[in-house]
Amino acid sequence: MPQYTNHFNTKTLDPHTLEQGYEALKREALSQEVGYYTLAADSQLLVEGLAPLSEEIERHYHTIAVIGIGGSSLGIKAIDRLLRSKTPNAKKIIYLENSDPVSILSEMSQIDPRRTLFMVISKSGGTVETLSIFKRLIVSFDLKVEHSKQIIVISDEGSILSKFADENTLRRFVIPANVGGRFSVLSAVGMVPLTLAGFDTMALLKGADGFLNRFWNREEEHLIQKASYYISNAQSMPINVLFAYSDLFEEFGKWIVQLWGESLGKRNRQGERVGLTPISLIGSVDQHSFLQLIVEGPLNKSVTFMHINHSEEALMIPELSLKHLEKSDFVNGISFNELINAQCQATMQSVLQSGTSVDEIAWERLDEGSVGEMILYYELLTSLAGVLLQINTYDQPGVELGKQILAGYFEKQIP
Amino acid sequence: MPQYTNHFNTKTLDPHTLEQGYEALKREALSQEVGYYTLAADSQLLVEGLAPLSEEIERHYHTIAVIGIGGSSLGIKAIDRLLRSKTPNAKKIIYLENSDPVSILSEMSQIDPRRTLFMVISKSGGTVETLSIFKRLIVSFDLKVEHSKQIIVISDEGSILSKFADENTLRRFVIPANVGGRFSVLSAVGMVPLTLAGFDTMALLKGADGFLNRFWNREEEHLIQKASYYISNAQSMPINVLFAYSDLFEEFGKWIVQLWGESLGKRNRQGERVGLTPISLIGSVDQHSFLQLIVEGPLNKSVTFMHINHSEEALMIPELSLKHLEKSDFVNGISFNELINAQCQATMQSVLQSGTSVDEIAWERLDEGSVGEMILYYELLTSLAGVLLQINTYDQPGVELGKQILAGYFEKQIP
Repeated sequence: MPQYTNHFNTKTLDPHTLEQGYEALKREALSQEVGYYTLAADSQLLVEGLAPLSEEIERHYHTIAVIGIGGSSLGIKAIDRLLRSKTPNAKKIIYLENSDPVSILSEMSQIDPRRTLFMVISKSGGTVETLSIFKRLIVSFDLKVEHSKQIIVISDEGSILSKFADENTLRRFVIPANVGGRFSVLSAVGMVPLTLAGFDTMALLKGADGFLNRFWNREEEHLIQKASYYISNAQSMPINVLFAYSDLFEEFGKWIVQLWGESLGKRNRQGERVGLTPISLIGSVDQHSFLQLIVEGPLNKSVTFMHINHSEEALMIPELSLKHLEKSDFVNGISFNELINAQCQATMQSVLQSGTSVDEIAWERLDEGSVGEMILYYELLTSLAGVLLQINTYDQPGVELGKQILAGYFEKQIP
Repeated sequence: MPQYTNHFNTKTLDPHTLEQGYEALKREALSQEVGYYTLAADSQLLVEGLAPLSEEIERHYHTIAVIGIGGSSLGIKAIDRLLRSKTPNAKKIIYLENSDPVSILSEMSQIDPRRTLFMVISKSGGTVETLSIFKRLIVSFDLKVEHSKQIIVISDEGSILSKFADENTLRRFVIPANVGGRFSVLSAVGMVPLTLAGFDTMALLKGADGFLNRFWNREEEHLIQKASYYISNAQSMPINVLFAYSDLFEEFGKWIVQLWGESLGKRNRQGERVGLTPISLIGSVDQHSFLQLIVEGPLNKSVTFMHINHSEEALMIPELSLKHLEKSDFVNGISFNELINAQCQATMQSVLQSGTSVDEIAWERLDEGSVGEMILYYELLTSLAGVLLQINTYDQPGVELGKQILAGYFEKQIP
C-alpha cells in the first residue's frame, strides 16, 4: 500500500475544521446525493456480472474503441496506462475523444471494424464531440446499428443516448444519476471497458474500497490534514503540483487535473471566485523544465512527490566507464528504478529547502490495489477541499455558456 | 502566417517600458552574449551542409533514436509532432529521455539496432539520464563505439561528451556556447535530427527568420505589448495558460512550459522570487476539464487561444440524423476542423465574458514556416518578459542543488 507523508506543518490546523470536513463527507455519503462513495463496493457486483459478456467479447474482438471525452475517457486512460505494462495481454483500447480531424483519422486508421467493439460513453448523452465521432464511425465503417452486438452504450438512465440504445436494442450500462462524470471512473464508465479489455478491475476496486473504509475509520487522517492545509493556505498557495516519477503517471495526472480543477474552480456560497490550480508534472523529465520555477520562483505552490519504490523491471545501468564520461559513473551498477527514486528524493529535498510545502506518496509497487486506492485518495481529497471551500464540488456551471455560444453559431446559419 | 490579436487592454502600458524592452533585446542580440537570435539565419547553412550526410543516412537507417532530455528533446518532439502528419515519409524518431525503466524498455523494444541512427544530445555533456541510457544502449545492442558512423553527438564545444566523441572519432555537432538548452531547438540540437529525418527544416528556419526580422523592424509590436501586459499584471495574474486547439500542440505546449517556466522562475536583481506559471491545455479536450476553473475560479490567469483555420484533412461530420440524438444535428454537414475552430471561438467568447485576459493566435494553416515563426514568437516573448522582470533569463541555478544531493547519495555508499 502507498505510504503518505505530509512534510508541511499541519499542527496549526484547527481540529474543529478537520472534524467538520470528515462529518460533512459522512453526511454526503449517507444522504446519497453524492454517489461515488459506494462505487468501489457496488461495482464489484457489476464486474462479476460481466463474465459472460467478457467471454463473448473475447471470441469476437481484439480491440475496444472508446468514444468519449473528459470524464468519459480520462479515468479509463489513466488506469490503462498505469496497468498496461503489467497486463500485457489486455486488449488494445483506442480512444476517440477530440474533435481534431488529424487525431480522428489517425485513430480510425488503426481500427479493424470487424474485430473492434465500440463503446459510446457520455453521461449527459449529448456530448457534441462524442456523437459527431460516433456518426463518423457509423458511416466510415458502415456499421449496422440496429440490434448490433458490436456497440455498447454507457450513459445516464433516461438520457437521449440511452433512449437511442433502447430504440436500437443495444447493450447499455448506466451511470448512477448521483455520480458526476469526473467521479465516475469506478462506475460502469471505467469498469466495463477495462474489465472487457482484460484488466483486473476487481483487485482495483478492492484497493479503492479498502482505502475508503480506512478513511471512514479515521485511519487515514493525513488526507483531511492535507485538504485542510491546502484550503487554509489557498490565498498564498493557489497552485498544487503533482510531481510523479514515471511516465506511466501522465494520464493519471490529467485525470487529477480535471478532478481538482473542475470540482474546485467555483463561486462559493458568498459568490466569491475560489479554486486551486492543479499542475501535473513527470519526473525526472520535468526536473529539466518546471523545477527551476518551483525552487526559485514565487512560493505560491505546493508539491506532491509521487514515486514507486519497487519496479518489476530490473533494468540496470551498466558497469561501463567511458573515457571522458567518468563523471556519470557514480550511478553505474544501480537500476534505473533506483536512479529515478533517488532523483525523486534528491529533488524533494531541494524543493523542501526552498521553503515549498511538500508531501510524499510512496507506492510500494505498481499494482491494481494501489491504483484503486489512489483514485479514492484523490476523490476524497477533492470532496474534502470542496466542503472546506463551501462550494458545490460536483457541478460545472461555467462550461455551459461556451456550449450555448457554439450552438448559436450554427443556428444562425439555418435560413 | 499566423494572426495575433490581443484582446486585453494594452492602452495603459507605459510606452517607455515597451521601448526599453525592445532596446534591451537589441542589446542582447548585438552583444552576442545571447546567441539564439542568429540561429534562424545561421542554421540555414548548417541544414544545407547536411545534404551529403542525409544521403548516407538514407541508405542505412530508417529510424533515429534521440537520446536527450529537457532542452535536448522537447523542441525536437514539438516540431516532429506538429509536422509529422504532413511529412508522412519522415523517418521514425524514437525518444529516450526519462530514467523510467518501463519507458526505456518500451522504446528499446522498438529499435532495430542495425537500422537505427543514435544521436546523443546534451548541452553540458554530463546529463545523468542521457549518459546512463546511452551506456545501456551500448551494452544491450552491442554497439561498437569507436569510429562508429551510427552514433552522432551534439554538445557544447569542449564538453566531456564532445571529448568522448573526438576520442572515438564520432561525428559531432556543436551547440553554440551562448545558446541555452531551452533556446537551442533551432541550433544543431533540433535541426540535425529533424533534417536527417526528412523534415523541411529550411522552410521552418525561413519562417522563424522572417518573424525575427519583422520584430526588429517594429512590425510585430503586439509581442512587446503582450510581454509588458503579462509582467505589469504578474501579481494579480501569475498563471499564463496556452489553450491550443489540436492534439498536435501537445508537445509544443510542453516546450513552451519549459521555456517560460525555467526562464522566468528566478530571483531578480533585488533577490526577490519572481516568475510566471505556464500551463498548457488542449482544445476541445480540456473544455471538459480545466475550463470550469478558468471561467468561475479566481481571475489569476491569462489565456492564449491558438487554433488552425484551415486543415488539410476535410473530414466531415456526416449528414446523419439518429433518432433521439437529433440534438447534435446542428453540426451535421460541417467538417471536424470547422467544429474545433467554432469550439475555440465559442470558448474564447465565454472566457472573455468571465473577465479573463485573452489573446488569440490564429494559424492560417499548419506549415513549416508557421512552426518556425511560433518558435521565435515564444522565444522573443520569453526574452522580453525576462528583461522586464530584471532577471537572467538564460540560466537555471535552482536545479543544481538537487543534482548535488543526488550525487551525495551515491558517493556516501562508496566505502
